[in-house]
Amino acid sequence: MTTSAPTGTKKVSIEFRPHDKVTRVPSGMTIFNAANWIGLPIDSTCGAKGTCGKCKVRILRGNNGATAADRRIFTEEELAEGWRLSCRSEATSDVVCHVPRLMGNPKAALMGFDRHVILNANVYKIPLTLTPPTLEDQRSDYSRIRDALEPEGYAIDASLNLVRGLPGVLRRSQWQVTAVVVGNELVSVEEGDTSDRVYGLAFDIGTTTVVGMLIDLNSGAPVAVRSTLNGQAVQGADVISRISYTMLNEDGLSELNEVILRTLNSLISQLLEEGRVAPHEVYEVVTAGNATMQHLLLGVDPEAIGLEPFIPAVEDMVQASAQEVGLEILPQAQVHCLPYLGAYVGADLVAGLLATGLAQNEGVRLLVDVGTNGEIILGSAARTVATAAPAGPAFEGAQIQDGMRASEGAIEAVTITQTGIDLQVIGDVPPIGLCGSGLLDAVAQLRLSGLMLPSGRFVKADEASEIVAPDLARRIITDEEGRRSFVLAWPEESGGEKAIVLTQRDVRELQFAKGSIAGGIDVVMQELGIEDEDLVEIFLAGSFGSYINPQSARIIGLVPPVPVDRIKAVGNAAGEGAKIALLSFRERMVARSLPEIVEYHELSGRGDFNDSFLAVLQFPELDTIGLDPAGLDPTGLDSDGPDTVGLDTRAVADTV
Amino acid sequence: MTTSAPTGTKKVSIEFRPHDKVTRVPSGMTIFNAANWIGLPIDSTCGAKGTCGKCKVRILRGNNGATAADRRIFTEEELAEGWRLSCRSEATSDVVCHVPRLMGNPKAALMGFDRHVILNANVYKIPLTLTPPTLEDQRSDYSRIRDALEPEGYAIDASLNLVRGLPGVLRRSQWQVTAVVVGNELVSVEEGDTSDRVYGLAFDIGTTTVVGMLIDLNSGAPVAVRSTLNGQAVQGADVISRISYTMLNEDGLSELNEVILRTLNSLISQLLEEGRVAPHEVYEVVTAGNATMQHLLLGVDPEAIGLEPFIPAVEDMVQASAQEVGLEILPQAQVHCLPYLGAYVGADLVAGLLATGLAQNEGVRLLVDVGTNGEIILGSAARTVATAAPAGPAFEGAQIQDGMRASEGAIEAVTITQTGIDLQVIGDVPPIGLCGSGLLDAVAQLRLSGLMLPSGRFVKADEASEIVAPDLARRIITDEEGRRSFVLAWPEESGGEKAIVLTQRDVRELQFAKGSIAGGIDVVMQELGIEDEDLVEIFLAGSFGSYINPQSARIIGLVPPVPVDRIKAVGNAAGEGAKIALLSFRERMVARSLPEIVEYHELSGRGDFNDSFLAVLQFPELDTIGLDPAGLDPTGLDSDGPDTVGLDTRAVADTV
Repeated sequence: MTTSAPTGTKKVSIEFRPHDKVTRVPSGMTIFNAANWIGLPIDSTCGAKGTCGKCKVRILRGNNGATAADRRIFTEEELAEGWRLSCRSEATSDVVCHVPRLMGNPKAALMGFDRHVILNANVYKIPLTLTPPTLEDQRSDYSRIRDALEPEGYAIDASLNLVRGLPGVLRRSQWQVTAVVVGNELVSVEEGDTSDRVYGLAFDIGTTTVVGMLIDLNSGAPVAVRSTLNGQAVQGADVISRISYTMLNEDGLSELNEVILRTLNSLISQLLEEGRVAPHEVYEVVTAGNATMQHLLLGVDPEAIGLEPFIPAVEDMVQASAQEVGLEILPQAQVHCLPYLGAYVGADLVAGLLATGLAQNEGVRLLVDVGTNGEIILGSAARTVATAAPAGPAFEGAQIQDGMRASEGAIEAVTITQTGIDLQVIGDVPPIGLCGSGLLDAVAQLRLSGLMLPSGRFVKADEASEIVAPDLARRIITDEEGRRSFVLAWPEESGGEKAIVLTQRDVRELQFAKGSIAGGIDVVMQELGIEDEDLVEIFLAGSFGSYINPQSARIIGLVPPVPVDRIKAVGNAAGEGAKIALLSFRERMVARSLPEIVEYHELSGRGDFNDSFLAVLQFPELDTIGLDPAGLDPTGLDSDGPDTVGLDTRAVADTV
Repeated sequence: MTTSAPTGTKKVSIEFRPHDKVTRVPSGMTIFNAANWIGLPIDSTCGAKGTCGKCKVRILRGNNGATAADRRIFTEEELAEGWRLSCRSEATSDVVCHVPRLMGNPKAALMGFDRHVILNANVYKIPLTLTPPTLEDQRSDYSRIRDALEPEGYAIDASLNLVRGLPGVLRRSQWQVTAVVVGNELVSVEEGDTSDRVYGLAFDIGTTTVVGMLIDLNSGAPVAVRSTLNGQAVQGADVISRISYTMLNEDGLSELNEVILRTLNSLISQLLEEGRVAPHEVYEVVTAGNATMQHLLLGVDPEAIGLEPFIPAVEDMVQASAQEVGLEILPQAQVHCLPYLGAYVGADLVAGLLATGLAQNEGVRLLVDVGTNGEIILGSAARTVATAAPAGPAFEGAQIQDGMRASEGAIEAVTITQTGIDLQVIGDVPPIGLCGSGLLDAVAQLRLSGLMLPSGRFVKADEASEIVAPDLARRIITDEEGRRSFVLAWPEESGGEKAIVLTQRDVRELQFAKGSIAGGIDVVMQELGIEDEDLVEIFLAGSFGSYINPQSARIIGLVPPVPVDRIKAVGNAAGEGAKIALLSFRERMVARSLPEIVEYHELSGRGDFNDSFLAVLQFPELDTIGLDPAGLDPTGLDSDGPDTVGLDTRAVADTV
């Protein structure tokens, strides 16, 4: 396992000529990496290991120290002229440098969300014709390979496992082999020329769902994509219950570790079968998951993540072999777990940053992963901050009277028209419950209709009939204790035997959940001094975020009220980011820099968060977010005007 | 696993001031290592990893490039003045440097054969009082340890295994721990201050016998020493039959791997019990064994070692974790297999070089490991050459009519007096056979007595009675086909029912065995241009070499005829060398340099070896080696003068 070394937080500026690009990066970042940061593809074929010699730049100002690698590559004269390997040259002061050559026609692809990614995987296949040994040349098998790779620009290391197979392969192949190098590790030596077959795996390991992608590293094309439920669901629906499970059960940790390995290995076997790829042809794996998921995958105790002050065992880029981790591919394959920004802003968000380019671009953007734990990142290339807000399980449909997970029979979208209600149900069957996105829609539509006040209270039944058609008004019901609910489906409309209702208490749950996230967003916006109108884009990420209706999110005040076309559901951003990190070691180096670049703010115990939370518990007045009150549908519906009943937040807090 | 990188064979000279010491080393060796080579202990506490900053020297001439490590440690002004870390500064041209400080009172011990060894193990225990995490300081457990070790001069890496245990240890210990660093690997984190308990294991893995030593790395003292038979004896007595076993049996390799692991783990368990040391308190292991034994230990196929052109899978210093290898100690403990000089000059000889200092001292010395395979190293600090000579199994008592292994009942020493014969028998029981050292003695004594001619032929019975007393002369017997033998023990003197005899054919076997080794010695002496009188010392090593009577070795011409007090049996030189490498990382670095410093000459197919072999098949004339012919015992015995019957080597070759 290797992890990145920490560097200082001082920033330095690096100017690249003749491209006239300037970037500010933390002191200690290499010039090569700083160029990757702004998408300037300096050539390199050794994975920035200082061995191929292609990434040379001439330093015109700053940073004039030569490294051992420089001395191997350059003459004394060239060193005196300022030539350096950019991948070894760490900028500790402002630097101006001349880049003589960028990658010629780099293979690139549009990936993630409008990201132009240079395809440059970290797996290299090098066909070798070795000189057979003689009595005059008795170098060992390993030295023979190592010596043959050196002029190709690779300085390798190898595991005992690799060496164990070496004598057989070299002799069976009659010294015609393909060496497979990942980073500086020789992970495989194969008979003959196998350079046309190079595969990797990218995993988004969600608490609920795991997505696996088998990628052809030559072409960049996904060969097979599969998703499955995280088998750990049995041991708890969310991160906290998984952590509790490891604390309450003696073998809980190894049990959860085995379960996630079973989940991944089963996905791997399906992916390989579909793609007709052999296990030994998979040389690298990148995972993106929250800290708890990655700890459980690695078999590391996550207990301290669950307790204040919320400490992971390891936060940097973790690298281990497939065998150490327990994945059923080439044992020496390298597994990279993307780094975390904090105990509750995991590698899934780091992957999301890669997929959106948020921390690398101009213009302030907001990335929100809506779930039990709301993860929030706000910023641009200038500065990026992150936080995590505990939202509770409402978005997962839990703690909601008729709530359910987003599976067959769940109401996933709701439209309230002037006269009735349209439900969109997963699987096109009669509804049996309400999942998170349906909950959000229902509340948003009720707000639009005027049937719900900004405080979250339903209007009284008699008031309702003044606002909407009788059939709709009748759906507001009151129980014997005076508690109001809204009937989404009468018994005869539902797939069960009883009505599906949205209770006043359900609405309160949602208010707490959205209040927490909106409060977190408020804190980071204040931190950066950003107003709503400064936001170029809002990305809704995560397995839940992707299904949210952006307009609904806006109506309930989950996100700032920017024009709705700036709010984008980015689907499986974590998976996209993991794929990008797998296909481009340049982007992976960017990911590796993110924890030192993104400022993490812990909300626990912060007074301003509590203030923000209380301030945003109520739903926004419709006119304050540019909507017609009672604007039920695009055609508009007249209403009695905005509801102006104020929300007593204390009263709400007491209610729940 | 890491292995050393190859460097050039050009030599450069390094002068150390103010000590006025100069050494010539291969280009590319670090200045620090060159100092170790000549025993100049430049200070260092980080194991020459460029992190502690204590090994600084000022370069006065040559080598002026600064490395990244230099830039971390020195100011620009100091760099300009020539200050460098000697452990990072590779000498690629002649260098003159000033060493401001040697180790203050280095703990040292006399080890091996008059070697003054600086005790400086590669295992560091660092007690740490960590700052507990807070919401303001949410660094991960691993970062916390790493950051605490950095100011102590350690830049660490860690395995997934280590990280798995980290959260528990830190919290149970309430942040009072001891970090254990081996090289740059954090191998353990222990509760409380455990710095008084640091242990390592040194193994001499012989084909026949395995010796294990448990060493207290704080004091340098052996805590327990045990030896046992190599359990692989069942699968073949020598290297070649072990290799054959792996070729002829489908699971042969894994079977032999399991057997040697069982042997080592059983030794380990005895050593730990005797020393009252827990498995997790053993942090490092050094092994010395021939290439085949080390391949079998590592589970690497040795087949190519057995077939021309005799190629090991790996020859450099191999390093792997105890878990990868399969040793039952701390899983992250580091196992170092010492390097080989060639397929048949193994790490046991490299260890022998450490124990004798042969390649580091002035004065030409010869180290010979006498066995089935004779390993021969000749040289001094100026130049050292090595070769291997296939001697066949005679020295092991095999292919000898009444031969046996050196176990109870074996005649291990023979003295022929004027009137009779004295036998020294292992276990003080009646003799049942003849082991290698007894065979050598018997032939040497027969030569001295005049009963055997330089050609190796026994004199005729009637001639014998003219030379020695009748009781002795009667021991030369002739069978019905006219073949002569010498009776070492009559049936009534033996522990069996029949006589123990030395046949003419037995003598031929010994002649071939000694001829091969003497021929190999001749080749390397010619290579270095050395005459017999130039030899300062001859070391007889290996489990067999230690039991040889130096005088007998000289009489039969196994070794050059230097005065007998210069011939020394050095016992378990391999074990001593492994212990030295365990206790002193400086000496281990010397060991690591040996393969590039010692020139290996393959004898197979060399014409001059065949010539030498034939020239030395006969035994030396006694007067040519400074002995009175028929000088049976120190009192001397008159004889009929030297036997001058010439040897027809072709005739000998035809006989066998």
